Amino acid sequence: MKTRKTIVGQIDADVLAFTAGRDVVLDLALVEADCIGSAAHVAMLSRIPLKRKLFSGKDKQKVIAELVSIIRASRKGTFKITGEDQDVHLAVERVLTGKLGDLGRKIHTARSRNDQVAVDLRLYGKEQLLGVMDEAVGLADELLKFAGKYQSVPMVGRTHLQPAMPSSVALWASAYAEALLDDMILLKSAYEYNDRCPLGSAAGYGVSLNIDRKLTAKLLGFKEPIHNVLYAGNARGKCESVILSNVAQVMITLSRLAQDLILFSMPEFGYFALPPEYCTGSSIMPQKKNPDVAELVRAKASVVMACALTAAEIVKGLPGGYNRDLQETKGPFIDGIRTTRSCLSIMAVIVKELRVNKKALLAGFTPDVFAADRALELVAKGMPFRTAYDHVKVHLDDLKAIDPALAIAAKKHLGATGGLDLMLLKSKVADAVKFTIAARKKFHSSITGLLGVPYPGLW
Amino acid sequence: MKTRKTIVGQIDADVLAFTAGRDVVLDLALVEADCIGSAAHVAMLSRIPLKRKLFSGKDKQKVIAELVSIIRASRKGTFKITGEDQDVHLAVERVLTGKLGDLGRKIHTARSRNDQVAVDLRLYGKEQLLGVMDEAVGLADELLKFAGKYQSVPMVGRTHLQPAMPSSVALWASAYAEALLDDMILLKSAYEYNDRCPLGSAAGYGVSLNIDRKLTAKLLGFKEPIHNVLYAGNARGKCESVILSNVAQVMITLSRLAQDLILFSMPEFGYFALPPEYCTGSSIMPQKKNPDVAELVRAKASVVMACALTAAEIVKGLPGGYNRDLQETKGPFIDGIRTTRSCLSIMAVIVKELRVNKKALLAGFTPDVFAADRALELVAKGMPFRTAYDHVKVHLDDLKAIDPALAIAAKKHLGATGGLDLMLLKSKVADAVKFTIAARKKFHSSITGLLGVPYPGLW
Amino acid sequence: MKTRKTIVGQIDADVLAFTAGRDVVLDLALVEADCIGSAAHVAMLSRIPLKRKLFSGKDKQKVIAELVSIIRASRKGTFKITGEDQDVHLAVERVLTGKLGDLGRKIHTARSRNDQVAVDLRLYGKEQLLGVMDEAVGLADELLKFAGKYQSVPMVGRTHLQPAMPSSVALWASAYAEALLDDMILLKSAYEYNDRCPLGSAAGYGVSLNIDRKLTAKLLGFKEPIHNVLYAGNARGKCESVILSNVAQVMITLSRLAQDLILFSMPEFGYFALPPEYCTGSSIMPQKKNPDVAELVRAKASVVMACALTAAEIVKGLPGGYNRDLQETKGPFIDGIRTTRSCLSIMAVIVKELRVNKKALLAGFTPDVFAADRALELVAKGMPFRTAYDHVKVHLDDLKAIDPALAIAAKKHLGATGGLDLMLLKSKVADAVKFTIAARKKFHSSITGLLGVPYPGLW
Amino acid sequence: MKTRKTIVGQIDADVLAFTAGRDVVLDLALVEADCIGSAAHVAMLSRIPLKRKLFSGKDKQKVIAELVSIIRASRKGTFKITGEDQDVHLAVERVLTGKLGDLGRKIHTARSRNDQVAVDLRLYGKEQLLGVMDEAVGLADELLKFAGKYQSVPMVGRTHLQPAMPSSVALWASAYAEALLDDMILLKSAYEYNDRCPLGSAAGYGVSLNIDRKLTAKLLGFKEPIHNVLYAGNARGKCESVILSNVAQVMITLSRLAQDLILFSMPEFGYFALPPEYCTGSSIMPQKKNPDVAELVRAKASVVMACALTAAEIVKGLPGGYNRDLQETKGPFIDGIRTTRSCLSIMAVIVKELRVNKKALLAGFTPDVFAADRALELVAKGMPFRTAYDHVKVHLDDLKAIDPALAIAAKKHLGATGGLDLMLLKSKVADAVKFTIAARKKFHSSITGLLGVPYPGLW
Repeated sequence: MKTRKTIVGQIDADVLAFTAGRDVVLDLALVEADCIGSAAHVAMLSRIPLKRKLFSGKDKQKVIAELVSIIRASRKGTFKITGEDQDVHLAVERVLTGKLGDLGRKIHTARSRNDQVAVDLRLYGKEQLLGVMDEAVGLADELLKFAGKYQSVPMVGRTHLQPAMPSSVALWASAYAEALLDDMILLKSAYEYNDRCPLGSAAGYGVSLNIDRKLTAKLLGFKEPIHNVLYAGNARGKCESVILSNVAQVMITLSRLAQDLILFSMPEFGYFALPPEYCTGSSIMPQKKNPDVAELVRAKASVVMACALTAAEIVKGLPGGYNRDLQETKGPFIDGIRTTRSCLSIMAVIVKELRVNKKALLAGFTPDVFAADRALELVAKGMPFRTAYDHVKVHLDDLKAIDPALAIAAKKHLGATGGLDLMLLKSKVADAVKFTIAARKKFHSSITGLLGVPYPGLW
Repeated sequence: MKTRKTIVGQIDADVLAFTAGRDVVLDLALVEADCIGSAAHVAMLSRIPLKRKLFSGKDKQKVIAELVSIIRASRKGTFKITGEDQDVHLAVERVLTGKLGDLGRKIHTARSRNDQVAVDLRLYGKEQLLGVMDEAVGLADELLKFAGKYQSVPMVGRTHLQPAMPSSVALWASAYAEALLDDMILLKSAYEYNDRCPLGSAAGYGVSLNIDRKLTAKLLGFKEPIHNVLYAGNARGKCESVILSNVAQVMITLSRLAQDLILFSMPEFGYFALPPEYCTGSSIMPQKKNPDVAELVRAKASVVMACALTAAEIVKGLPGGYNRDLQETKGPFIDGIRTTRSCLSIMAVIVKELRVNKKALLAGFTPDVFAADRALELVAKGMPFRTAYDHVKVHLDDLKAIDPALAIAAKKHLGATGGLDLMLLKSKVADAVKFTIAARKKFHSSITGLLGVPYPGLW
Repeated sequence: MKTRKTIVGQIDADVLAFTAGRDVVLDLALVEADCIGSAAHVAMLSRIPLKRKLFSGKDKQKVIAELVSIIRASRKGTFKITGEDQDVHLAVERVLTGKLGDLGRKIHTARSRNDQVAVDLRLYGKEQLLGVMDEAVGLADELLKFAGKYQSVPMVGRTHLQPAMPSSVALWASAYAEALLDDMILLKSAYEYNDRCPLGSAAGYGVSLNIDRKLTAKLLGFKEPIHNVLYAGNARGKCESVILSNVAQVMITLSRLAQDLILFSMPEFGYFALPPEYCTGSSIMPQKKNPDVAELVRAKASVVMACALTAAEIVKGLPGGYNRDLQETKGPFIDGIRTTRSCLSIMAVIVKELRVNKKALLAGFTPDVFAADRALELVAKGMPFRTAYDHVKVHLDDLKAIDPALAIAAKKHLGATGGLDLMLLKSKVADAVKFTIAARKKFHSSITGLLGVPYPGLW
Repeated sequence: MKTRKTIVGQIDADVLAFTAGRDVVLDLALVEADCIGSAAHVAMLSRIPLKRKLFSGKDKQKVIAELVSIIRASRKGTFKITGEDQDVHLAVERVLTGKLGDLGRKIHTARSRNDQVAVDLRLYGKEQLLGVMDEAVGLADELLKFAGKYQSVPMVGRTHLQPAMPSSVALWASAYAEALLDDMILLKSAYEYNDRCPLGSAAGYGVSLNIDRKLTAKLLGFKEPIHNVLYAGNARGKCESVILSNVAQVMITLSRLAQDLILFSMPEFGYFALPPEYCTGSSIMPQKKNPDVAELVRAKASVVMACALTAAEIVKGLPGGYNRDLQETKGPFIDGIRTTRSCLSIMAVIVKELRVNKKALLAGFTPDVFAADRALELVAKGMPFRTAYDHVKVHLDDLKAIDPALAIAAKKHLGATGGLDLMLLKSKVADAVKFTIAARKKFHSSITGLLGVPYPGLW
């Protein structure tokens, strides 16, 4: 082992490198959130009644103007976090102090880094969850368009992967759309869970200044402050875990859609095909068109589920109060959300360009696919079900002449092939879009008010 | 290897035993739900317009009366599922057919076992989630009572487990109460996700009879039917996974409370003590009083998280349409919920009986615990924060004379030791109680209407 | 909440029920191991030099005779563990004390329950791992027989599930055989890890009597005692986690074999078929033959992986010394091993009875499957690879006339379709069988010597 | 959604970015392995008998010389993988073709990228596992040195974290050393599992040239080739999963050591202290010395366990033959190993510098710690155990005068405080060192022979 003992500041260099970990890179995702959080903190400090004000109105404006500059630098990609900074909070403080001297130093009054990272992650989570929702709903919308386009195209329905009963391309596609719309319940609940402001917790025990936590919560567009300051601290990690576990449910939905695409684009089925520019080839097999995107989405579901598990396992059994373990939830949090968003986004492209081979779909209809429906017709005519079931079982040949298109049209009850109400599902898409628009508006207009410049929310 | 080839019905006996798995035991938890689901199905069939009615009004009454008898037998513990039955659905059908002949056989018309188990699990999930909510809120309530009782008792606040700043027993206890109240957001969203009726999906592709899916949903007290029948099938497994992953978040909260109890009941702290009748001893150490309950709760958090993961992993990448894999989600679903409920329930008892040792709590206050607050006072008087920080660091001895009780009373901002508003949290408890009362009333009154006998919902 | 306060012995009844958990049921699997462990302990105590011997030779024989009776009762299913017993250790002690009075009571000298359960689980683990190995090797053997039977039958090789290159049924089947043989490395390492005796650790800190730990290790057929007594205690849970994580790797292998069986028994492929008595049908589709066994094996892989994770997560971050959390590793340990064994066993039956449809396999050979081989032939004749690749890509039609049987026979290098050496893999099977025979012999002959009656090791 | 349709080569740019993923960065870790694998492939091709040789001896030397240059560039950090390259294989081919024209292009003959990445990961795995072993053994060695230094220092032994029985610092530290030595069994088995060469599998179905797979295996220092080429392909992902799950067991050991360090460095215990340069402070609490390293190690155990799970879950249920999902195992594989190595390395530093506070350790000895030993002394004098137990329970006060140092010295049986044989454990350390030296020598001398330049194995 090499000799250790290089000391940076007061800390051994190897220890510093170990403890800072990936923060220097990951925190680039949090620069904007950190500046916004600091702006709210300074704005609040400038308003609380103290004998000697910490920040005058002018001071506040100076600081916020610098914070806006940092946000702009961050968007241009010119803001850097150095190894010595360790994290985004010290990097921002360094720049502020460089520009504003003591004024910059003072913004750290009445808060701690735990406080800052907690609010940063919540702000990041809000913006990202809105993005995930947009993309989930966007994919649902593409699936419904696809379903509408192929509404009358029959497709064999399967159980145990074996051909089972008549179904349709529309039923198949809109099933995944409805799954995503159901996942919206979970995304909204993650949004609600996240929509409480931890600021003012400091190290988890509040501060001896009489800060106004309701004000910072309002300035940042949160629904309300978390009440108990210790809980505000304890919720770090838990909140990431909650968001990730709900986002992972979306990935599970995607993994199943991906699995179906992989299976049904095999030449033995040939139901679906992707344009060649969306498939990769083989380095040794000239003929190959591989469904790489779908395979990667299937695998990335496991990746995001592991991100969720990591956060949960880190938090499980952790003593109350801040523990450094929580730093390790940041990577899975950012990676898990990014992965989900890229998968949703690429799947929307795939579904949009997906080609359907009607002939291949019809070829899948062997007579036995109609057996269950036939048995039920006999029942409707008065035969007991088990008798009808046995009758059909020995007369499978009678089912050859059935037309799949008629069979799927005939099943008219709610949600069946002939009773599918795509408009109903589209109206749920519209409701979801309304929700994200309203939530984003509330959030962004608060930030715009705080920073004094229009906040587009693009990070 | 032994000779195989014993054939039961048409299936090899070993294969049958392997495929039936734990169902014969697990399904005992679903008898009531299965009967209720069947009652709704029969009631619907008796109302749809067919040339030759499947069930007359009288038929319906006969069937429902038998189903009520089965429910009663199940509550008395006299209803059995045999190995030949394989599962609850066939066991119920066997009894009905034994009593009612063809009428019993007919109830399987226009549905499949997939359909039945899907609705059974949703009904079970509704009832159980309401139970989890009751118990989570009950524990929150105990924690708030405990906080109220010891509101002015100081307790060292920790970060990295090291003594950090003045805190209080009330802050500690109500932090966990608020955590549970936040978890209510997740439980409610699981409830909402689960509150859609899958009935009428049959094997995932609907049926050729014109069934009324809105009616069955209404009879069972669901918010609405799932629309797309294929999605209704695909949602099996996913729904269990969603419920479990949200319930697991409650267990994470409990694991942290348990961890704190284990740590702070060590004699080196002695902050908390359990009455001896709640502790187990050692087989070789006569003096021991062990915090077994808290340790088991900590471990059971991992158990429930693994239940959630099992369901999620089984569903991940599964092709659309029913797959037998889904049977394996039933065990983790039932076990995970039961484990959570028993942990919530026992922790409420523990918190209720928890004894507090004020002397030990005060002894924990070493002078440096006051350092951060002191630095902030200097800031309030005009010293820049980093300067104040450095000043205090070299004058730690000055902090000896500070009274912890005054220190915690002085921190008056929202949610800090002196600004803790237990009434606010109690009002959230009251809101949560209102929610479960209303949800349970809607659910149970629907079932009462369906069965024609008061439905107490105790299973 | 109901009134609590029923006290059993000195412990609240609800607390007792909560802490005993599933032990009363699970411990039935450990009765034999517990008796064997106690026999070794007593035999050792009877030999250590003390002023006043704890056990005379006769005492020892009496105790061991009773332990043998309990083992016999356990095998007949007549040994019971009551709720008051709490666990197998107290149940065995109760019986011994009932029969032998003080002599029975004395066997608890110089050990603790932690000690006992640790050695019980290791003994159970030894026996079960040998069983898992037998069955894994048995399945490998069936796969090789199957491969031998269909050695010259072509089968399309796939990548990305798309048809890729010529392959054979033998290559497919023996790939899974070799996977299982590789998994044997892991099972053997788990066996080696487990093959150390924890006895004499007592509560983790040894005892003040001068016990002979090497002797007990030898009497029980272990390789050696764990040295450090604290580590002997700490290894509880970890050892279960190690065994489960290696056993889970076997399940991963099975899950892939199962997946292939599910896919290739779809009628669109029809490569493989199971006899109908190994398939279940549908309650509404009379024509269905479903691959339920394979689907359940696929799902049970997730179940066993979750068992492994549960044990690992419980142990992760646990403080040194015994913690009650460890009780919760017992369920996943026993369930995980049992599940794996039943899956291995049923898959061997499935593979044995698997039918192959040559016609369907040949029908899968479209011309492009030969493209990569053709490109390589051109390379062998001197064309640069990328040029050959491009040439074949535009001349795919030239490949129609190729005979799959010749194509697979032509690939003669080591391990390719024409160079497959099944005898080599069979010799690895034989080596594995030798290993388990030797290990079992060493283990069982030790126990036979200890108990004085032949020990067949069937539990 | 932005307009798509930028086409790179023949693939949509967004699809390309999505599918390439993190490969461009991750593959930098594989440059050396890839060059070595290619060298072996070329060396083999130059030796197989073909009418027109693919590579003359001179050709081979030219190619290998270029590959050595790339290795050197990689070590200097000047070798780049561009977005267009997509991965290390194409980047290396690009450079070779740039320098050597057609000769460079030809090295891709008779293999595929699947083949390459499989062998790259196995070579990487070999080197890294040897590193993990070195560091695990290094930490065990530090723990044994520490144990030796404080051999006679008493420390309260705990169960359920409650003080239980007399123990020692040496018992505590060497328990973790022995745990790591046991983990070596797992690391060696992972090494053995990994030590088989997949080269020659190509896309999983071999090649039509008569390649010599035994030769490439030998040139690369592998024990043997994997036999079945399809299994060689299927083992991708599985092998990473096996290595990670065994490496994760090391992290579990570390997490427990970390947990103990966190607990026992709390001022309430004060048993251990770290030099200040290994602790970080607080941004608002001037007095704090936080055990960040130990906390991060505890959390990183969850991270590595999640890496293992990700690989396992991706592979579970995957159909046979290459699937693109496998790309997603690369990140967790590299990250998981790196994390483990950094944790082992930093913990060795921590243990080396760990300070022991004897006074605090002695202060922990309350009289009841001696109760169990006292009970056993009474037993040795003839009192039945349960009677002795009850006697001591009511006479706890008699235990005050016992000297901890004598108590721990008195327990002399194997592995107890007074019978601890550190030399035995040190000899296990020495054996482990011998193993890694021999394995590394075999591996590196093969590579040295292949490349014709000394191979130091430092990547």
